[in-house]
Amino acid sequence: MKTGVWLIGARGNVAAVSMVGAKAIAQGRTDTTGMVTAREPLSALDLPAVEDLVFGGHDIRSQSITETALAASESSGVPPKSTIEAVEDDLDAIDSRIETGTAINCGQVVGDLAHGDATAEQTVPDLVSAIRADYEAFVADHDLDRLVVVNVASTEPPIDEPERYDTADAVRSAIENDDRALPASVLYAYAALEDGHPYVNFTPSTGSNLDGLCELARERGVPHMGQDAKTGETLVKSALAPMFAGRNLRVLSWEGHNILGNTDGLVLEDDDNKAGKVQSKDGLLEEILGYETQSRVRIDYTPSLGDRKTAWDHIHFEGFLGTEMKLQFTWEGSDSALAAPLVLDLIRLVSHADAQGRSGVQPQLAAFFKSPMAYETHDFSRQHEQLQNYATEHRQE
Amino acid sequence: MKTGVWLIGARGNVAAVSMVGAKAIAQGRTDTTGMVTAREPLSALDLPAVEDLVFGGHDIRSQSITETALAASESSGVPPKSTIEAVEDDLDAIDSRIETGTAINCGQVVGDLAHGDATAEQTVPDLVSAIRADYEAFVADHDLDRLVVVNVASTEPPIDEPERYDTADAVRSAIENDDRALPASVLYAYAALEDGHPYVNFTPSTGSNLDGLCELARERGVPHMGQDAKTGETLVKSALAPMFAGRNLRVLSWEGHNILGNTDGLVLEDDDNKAGKVQSKDGLLEEILGYETQSRVRIDYTPSLGDRKTAWDHIHFEGFLGTEMKLQFTWEGSDSALAAPLVLDLIRLVSHADAQGRSGVQPQLAAFFKSPMAYETHDFSRQHEQLQNYATEHRQE
Amino acid sequence: MKTGVWLIGARGNVAAVSMVGAKAIAQGRTDTTGMVTAREPLSALDLPAVEDLVFGGHDIRSQSITETALAASESSGVPPKSTIEAVEDDLDAIDSRIETGTAINCGQVVGDLAHGDATAEQTVPDLVSAIRADYEAFVADHDLDRLVVVNVASTEPPIDEPERYDTADAVRSAIENDDRALPASVLYAYAALEDGHPYVNFTPSTGSNLDGLCELARERGVPHMGQDAKTGETLVKSALAPMFAGRNLRVLSWEGHNILGNTDGLVLEDDDNKAGKVQSKDGLLEEILGYETQSRVRIDYTPSLGDRKTAWDHIHFEGFLGTEMKLQFTWEGSDSALAAPLVLDLIRLVSHADAQGRSGVQPQLAAFFKSPMAYETHDFSRQHEQLQNYATEHRQE
Amino acid sequence: MKTGVWLIGARGNVAAVSMVGAKAIAQGRTDTTGMVTAREPLSALDLPAVEDLVFGGHDIRSQSITETALAASESSGVPPKSTIEAVEDDLDAIDSRIETGTAINCGQVVGDLAHGDATAEQTVPDLVSAIRADYEAFVADHDLDRLVVVNVASTEPPIDEPERYDTADAVRSAIENDDRALPASVLYAYAALEDGHPYVNFTPSTGSNLDGLCELARERGVPHMGQDAKTGETLVKSALAPMFAGRNLRVLSWEGHNILGNTDGLVLEDDDNKAGKVQSKDGLLEEILGYETQSRVRIDYTPSLGDRKTAWDHIHFEGFLGTEMKLQFTWEGSDSALAAPLVLDLIRLVSHADAQGRSGVQPQLAAFFKSPMAYETHDFSRQHEQLQNYATEHRQE
Repeated sequence: MKTGVWLIGARGNVAAVSMVGAKAIAQGRTDTTGMVTAREPLSALDLPAVEDLVFGGHDIRSQSITETALAASESSGVPPKSTIEAVEDDLDAIDSRIETGTAINCGQVVGDLAHGDATAEQTVPDLVSAIRADYEAFVADHDLDRLVVVNVASTEPPIDEPERYDTADAVRSAIENDDRALPASVLYAYAALEDGHPYVNFTPSTGSNLDGLCELARERGVPHMGQDAKTGETLVKSALAPMFAGRNLRVLSWEGHNILGNTDGLVLEDDDNKAGKVQSKDGLLEEILGYETQSRVRIDYTPSLGDRKTAWDHIHFEGFLGTEMKLQFTWEGSDSALAAPLVLDLIRLVSHADAQGRSGVQPQLAAFFKSPMAYETHDFSRQHEQLQNYATEHRQE
Repeated sequence: MKTGVWLIGARGNVAAVSMVGAKAIAQGRTDTTGMVTAREPLSALDLPAVEDLVFGGHDIRSQSITETALAASESSGVPPKSTIEAVEDDLDAIDSRIETGTAINCGQVVGDLAHGDATAEQTVPDLVSAIRADYEAFVADHDLDRLVVVNVASTEPPIDEPERYDTADAVRSAIENDDRALPASVLYAYAALEDGHPYVNFTPSTGSNLDGLCELARERGVPHMGQDAKTGETLVKSALAPMFAGRNLRVLSWEGHNILGNTDGLVLEDDDNKAGKVQSKDGLLEEILGYETQSRVRIDYTPSLGDRKTAWDHIHFEGFLGTEMKLQFTWEGSDSALAAPLVLDLIRLVSHADAQGRSGVQPQLAAFFKSPMAYETHDFSRQHEQLQNYATEHRQE
Repeated sequence: MKTGVWLIGARGNVAAVSMVGAKAIAQGRTDTTGMVTAREPLSALDLPAVEDLVFGGHDIRSQSITETALAASESSGVPPKSTIEAVEDDLDAIDSRIETGTAINCGQVVGDLAHGDATAEQTVPDLVSAIRADYEAFVADHDLDRLVVVNVASTEPPIDEPERYDTADAVRSAIENDDRALPASVLYAYAALEDGHPYVNFTPSTGSNLDGLCELARERGVPHMGQDAKTGETLVKSALAPMFAGRNLRVLSWEGHNILGNTDGLVLEDDDNKAGKVQSKDGLLEEILGYETQSRVRIDYTPSLGDRKTAWDHIHFEGFLGTEMKLQFTWEGSDSALAAPLVLDLIRLVSHADAQGRSGVQPQLAAFFKSPMAYETHDFSRQHEQLQNYATEHRQE
Repeated sequence: MKTGVWLIGARGNVAAVSMVGAKAIAQGRTDTTGMVTAREPLSALDLPAVEDLVFGGHDIRSQSITETALAASESSGVPPKSTIEAVEDDLDAIDSRIETGTAINCGQVVGDLAHGDATAEQTVPDLVSAIRADYEAFVADHDLDRLVVVNVASTEPPIDEPERYDTADAVRSAIENDDRALPASVLYAYAALEDGHPYVNFTPSTGSNLDGLCELARERGVPHMGQDAKTGETLVKSALAPMFAGRNLRVLSWEGHNILGNTDGLVLEDDDNKAGKVQSKDGLLEEILGYETQSRVRIDYTPSLGDRKTAWDHIHFEGFLGTEMKLQFTWEGSDSALAAPLVLDLIRLVSHADAQGRSGVQPQLAAFFKSPMAYETHDFSRQHEQLQNYATEHRQE
């Protein structure tokens, strides 16, 4: 079994660090800390080996993966420069397989990153055909048994009236009729599902999160999941909020402030794109707490931090006898170091689901996402338990 | 059904705030925020009503409950003065039922709190007889159907060689032979269990946590549980540590610093007593993470804070590609406002267990304790799930 | 000597707490903690006694000072309810002297606070005449030797092209010609200075900060000072930034996030008014550090906090050998408890300057302001030294 | 003019990073960020150039400076590995000039660092003679015009009854009589001052801080200063405390918790040595605030942090109307990156003082120390002003 990975946004930070990591693991230069699938009971599943994954992808930038990785290393120390140098040949080989993608409806800032490509002038059906051809060529060239498509591109603005794409046919006919409202992430997701490739939406962009694409995935018998990987502040929130609920402590307000300095931060400075991000955090607190509370998530661009992200959360709550108390936390993480191992986890786990013949959205993967497309709870411990139960059920004999 | 509550340390902060709260709830002056049993699915159990509980207890201090409550209110605003005034008559009535207790082997600082009582000169068998007589008189005077004994007294130093009390007979014979190594908490627990009264150890003191007392409880068919209520930093720890484990993020060090200003803090300044406290936090991280990590919990006395407790935790962890990151939190809580509703919860839940005929330690109550006497995990979310499952199973028709 | 105090915004939080405090000091119910003039060497100046101040003022709201104070007490515990009750008669007496003011050009949110007064329909010259008549009547009614006017009203939006008011004549002629661009704070300041009353602008609103009003003050020989009292995050900033400068540590970014829940916060939610606030923080870092740095100040409205304000600041800096480090702080203060004593200090100190015959802006008061109208440095320690030097120079024989 | 620098503890972290930095500046590989003397007005003084300093020193360890620097780089990234490699030849040259020192009375942990040298068996007069001979040979070998001796060795335990060494003669006779209570730092300081070499005590150890050594320095006309460089938490404290004093805000408690992972932390784990450290922080708050307050400084060893130090400070204070508020900060710094540039600054400034013929303790250098041997205030801004005034006074024509 040979598993291919097609990364949308293959020259971005998250993609670059994922691939540096996969290749460094293959060389035995780093361990699997940060990978959920490296730990019992998930490690007992029959998963594709990290060292065997074959990478390719789309991007709209011309800088090489190595350049992206070195810039990240320079600004934040992740990945270490010596690690990048050790896997540079591997990265060069992948770079040669990257095709120019489309940034249609990705917003102004993302558009500015593109190096003058004319995809915007192509019709939607032509764009989709080109994407499908790229997938097909990659599978053929590398003799792949399975191709997993993962969206790790910068956040797009949310789309208006998503309910107009509520059936597989509605999506197909929108594409045929050159519907200029469809954003890039939907085109990539459509192309993957239509051709039977498992799909993961690592970002808050729309991706496969349209009723029409969910129907398509079920029709084609292909697993998919999203969206918006839970790597930082929201991860902590999903671990802490159940404590307040469990103790019947009333959250009066939960304020969060994120500062970050990478491209993600730059893109989010653009108000349209930020809307996409902020919206994807809705609902978590309300679901866990069981009531609405004052909540706000600020995201600001602070270039000096490079790929480092700092979040400050201030939780004001009330306990017995009207007593007001508070919990504050700061989270200082490297966005790509947190995200990259989850990319590898999701590739392995969605491959496993595909091998099991599971189709449609995959609720056992809810723990990985801020806005899981199917889930029972946002409580991280319980989400993780669900994943462990899946692992226990499917563990290799 | 009439349920009595006998509090060991009935004039301390936690006891005072619990009783002020219970009486304020009875008067409709405050709500049940902070009480776990007030929330679904626990609220669907057939539990004794808070307003019907009859309080009594032992203490070694002469100041009244109202004086304790007013001092706490003055120093930290909890409980509100107006609430204390509203329930003052109730508190006076309880005060008249409080008997002088023993502080044997409770350490120097606790001993200094005593108002000159000569219990230290009594023999152990005499002390136990006196305690049993006090329980019995309380039951008779108030025509109680059930008596729950709860230890909320200040932390004792840990005892040496607890394994010498590994059978019910060993405990009984130690008492008969006036074994001066037995601390007060063990005598109170023994007296409760021997006479069939459900027992809760809210503190880190030994209480019923001897193999011999566990055997006794099973023999007598009485439920008990402990120890050391999980109210602050450890609660947060038990909510956050599973996140690191779940994401395979390696905790390099977890440093905690607690500052607090109440009697509890004063008692913990004494090194012997602090040993009891620090020891009770061991094991949680290791069990959840699956490996040993550098960990330290400092507890310092800061009088200006009154009953307020602030904890700062600094968690240094490693993720993918050797990337070092950190999470820090500060928790600013009122110890008694956090503890008091749990006292009421535990009274109600151990009564329920008793009514169900459950005997011995009660693992479904693990979520309430730092060092649960029986448990599957320290992961707070899963502990709480266990409690919810108990509730669902036993919910009233 | 009898000193009157005319508060613009007399029914707001800051005014209410200042007056509660002054009256509580007069009754010996509280001490002077928080008042700079209560401490050596300032206490050695010949200042008007706090207990002798006679208060009056303008406001656009109908709720009484006591109602404002009680609402603040309810939401944040400041001032204590018992203190308000003790001075309620004094507050009622002051309430009877409060005149309805104008909210012209104060922005939508402030306008909404007004209780249907028709001042907006009056012409500017009529408004000014009415204000002057109010001042005059207050002086006459209470037989005052000196009247100090203090602006403690909510923040107005900044005005456009302030340079058009660069002479006393330009201001006068704008008033005569019913210039609808003039905001309320300018009218109050003009009226004070024209009539020789010392004036303090405690807020970021324009007030006397127009070249034309500065000229007028010099002409009339009257002292004035502003603007925007330095009470919280900026105070800390002005104490910490000199440390970075003094050690030649390069500040790479300084991010601040303020959350607060009082009327001030509500008003600042309105983007126009926030512009006024944010602008007033510019320049401090650049002056102290000697270079421009990435800096941002977020102010968000969090109703649950009441009058409490929490600020989180994240300072990312570089030291020797390119080493990146950081300092973070959280400041949890009560805005009015911090502001109120400074109102009393400024009343006393601007009275003193007036008694000394000092006219125009008063640089020795720079320590009190975020945007001092005259200053040598924003470094708090040095500003305070300047104030101490003034005190030493003028200390009573 | 050729200036030599003799470092006591030349193979420790602070020394290593200072020398790496000096050599990297000489090569133009790094800038002077973090050096106070690189900034106006100090940069206008006639100071020895960093690139011209000639380094030598004593140590008790056998590992090379490069090994120390590489270990620091490995554990905390400071100095960068590439910088160390670039200056490795310079470091090797210095290494060849390092003489084996004495660790007499430096405590157990420091003693354990020694590589089996027998200095402990030498008599005190012999040790002093050896030290003086080392100084003399270094001056002769390198044809130095001036030699500055700097103590950067690990903290010693404080000495008992320092008053017995209150005259130069008392010190001399103690040495002659082989007084075994004299710790290493005193011997090094004595040897420097007796021979006319300016001396800086960068550590909390005794060094020249004996009345007898101060007398000796005045007799010999040689400048010296100490002690305990102000690099982290105390620096912030000395910047923040004046704010509370200046605003008459009453500090109720000031709690500090430092965690650090370098040799300094390891040495401080030893209780005797910690006493030296804790004691050196006394007095600062009381002097600045004008009253005693509850204060504590915890220092704990957290190996995972390497050379990184994190301090959490919790300041509980009271303002107007009894309102309680708080300020908390966390400081995340690299100890050696903060200390090293100050070592270079002090070498340059004590050389300047020597060139000016100033003898005895140098109060203009108070800003550099936690426990300055002569000072007017601990207020950092004012200390720095004093230094700037010195610079302005002595600036080069």
